[in-house]
Amino acid sequence: MSGDLAILAGRGAMPRALAEAYPQALCVAFDGVETDLPRAGAQHGFEAFGALLDDLKARGITRLVLAGGVGRPPLDPGAFDPFMQALAPRLLAALQGGDDALVRLVISVFEEADFAVIGAHELLPDLTAAAGLLAGTEPDEAARADITRGREILAALSPLDVGQSAVVDTGIALGIETQQGTDAMLRFVAETPANLRGTGGVLVKRPKLGQDLRVDMPAIGPETVRGAAKAGLRGIAIAAGQVVLIEREALIAAAQEAGLFLLAEAP
Amino acid sequence: MSGDLAILAGRGAMPRALAEAYPQALCVAFDGVETDLPRAGAQHGFEAFGALLDDLKARGITRLVLAGGVGRPPLDPGAFDPFMQALAPRLLAALQGGDDALVRLVISVFEEADFAVIGAHELLPDLTAAAGLLAGTEPDEAARADITRGREILAALSPLDVGQSAVVDTGIALGIETQQGTDAMLRFVAETPANLRGTGGVLVKRPKLGQDLRVDMPAIGPETVRGAAKAGLRGIAIAAGQVVLIEREALIAAAQEAGLFLLAEAP
Repeated sequence: MSGDLAILAGRGAMPRALAEAYPQALCVAFDGVETDLPRAGAQHGFEAFGALLDDLKARGITRLVLAGGVGRPPLDPGAFDPFMQALAPRLLAALQGGDDALVRLVISVFEEADFAVIGAHELLPDLTAAAGLLAGTEPDEAARADITRGREILAALSPLDVGQSAVVDTGIALGIETQQGTDAMLRFVAETPANLRGTGGVLVKRPKLGQDLRVDMPAIGPETVRGAAKAGLRGIAIAAGQVVLIEREALIAAAQEAGLFLLAEAP
Repeated sequence: MSGDLAILAGRGAMPRALAEAYPQALCVAFDGVETDLPRAGAQHGFEAFGALLDDLKARGITRLVLAGGVGRPPLDPGAFDPFMQALAPRLLAALQGGDDALVRLVISVFEEADFAVIGAHELLPDLTAAAGLLAGTEPDEAARADITRGREILAALSPLDVGQSAVVDTGIALGIETQQGTDAMLRFVAETPANLRGTGGVLVKRPKLGQDLRVDMPAIGPETVRGAAKAGLRGIAIAAGQVVLIEREALIAAAQEAGLFLLAEAP
């Protein structure tokens, strides 16, 4: 039974995947956040966070999962309930940091209210990949070098709470993920003039070093593969056990069809 | 007199600015590299680098300036002259690194052939800005914080030879420059959905830490300002003395008109 579980739904495919795997769980949507859920549940606004906590308790919820990012929904301080008014100073401080800082605050607030916040990867262990080649042919030396460079770029940015993915083509960085997400970055890379391109390139996607995977788990899906193919890449390298595979079979089929390798590397 | 000077012309506004300031200098264009020059000069292909060196010597050239980047023009190894064939191993090694590694190799090759390679900023000292506010009103605390964060991002990436500019909006990175350049990044930022935006944001542009300014000097121009305005930014922060101002008056006028601040900070 999962009647004590609430899925706090953000963007992307994660809310639906979780809601389908946990049919008893309460789905919670938020004003101003587009989401994709298979069934109705509760609807809340971030301005009335106190009401959200009360509602969850009244429904007997004890465990929460944050499913997908919510970006920075517009907040109307004039509409803050007393709970949010009291939270305002911590909220302001978190807003100075990256997105993770904000979600870490949200996790703290839930934990202080005695909810257990669990990671999507704990609820859906099959969603991530074991180390190994999932599709395509083993990356050659050039692709391996691009993967290494992509990992170096992400590692350098990790302490700044920036970057969950990067594209490197023949030694040259063509894309570093910012707030707009992986798909937007891949569209940007696809527009790169041919004279700035190398021989293909790879997408590297992994959590930030030390990232709390309950915060916002990196994910790839068939759309990511199609975006990578349109961007002329040769493959995708992810961190084993730490990147969610959305629609795993369709994803792997898409990679095979596009001739892309999909490699899960040890974290 | 500047008859001993050759301007090796890449992309952007730098070749024209140098050629106009040094009317006696030889303009050298390259096959496969779009450039903007006010007069004809020599035309060469990268495959025949030996012929280029010979031609420059025959014309009495002793000083060279690399004006603007050349990206990665397609090279046909089958067309390599003996000089390029001998250079191939070093070229391959440099190609594994960032763009700077490649241009550093080119500088070394010119220096080994007894040319002096000088920086555009040495030839056009007025092209950079002294520390201070060039346009607009002093950035407020939020803009200052975004500038600091942008500088941190660029500093983190410097050892990897990546990133000459970044956009940060209310603490969140919206763009990190890759091979496609600043203008492409600003167009990308301009497309950011409103719900992922903060209250404005800034463009930070500076050389990489320890960057050889003869390699590829960062530059901003009226186009940069217009791109920043279209991206909804509040201002631009550059490094004093290290970033070229293309069409300085038009640039400052464009910033004033768009209501953007333009701040030159001590390196």
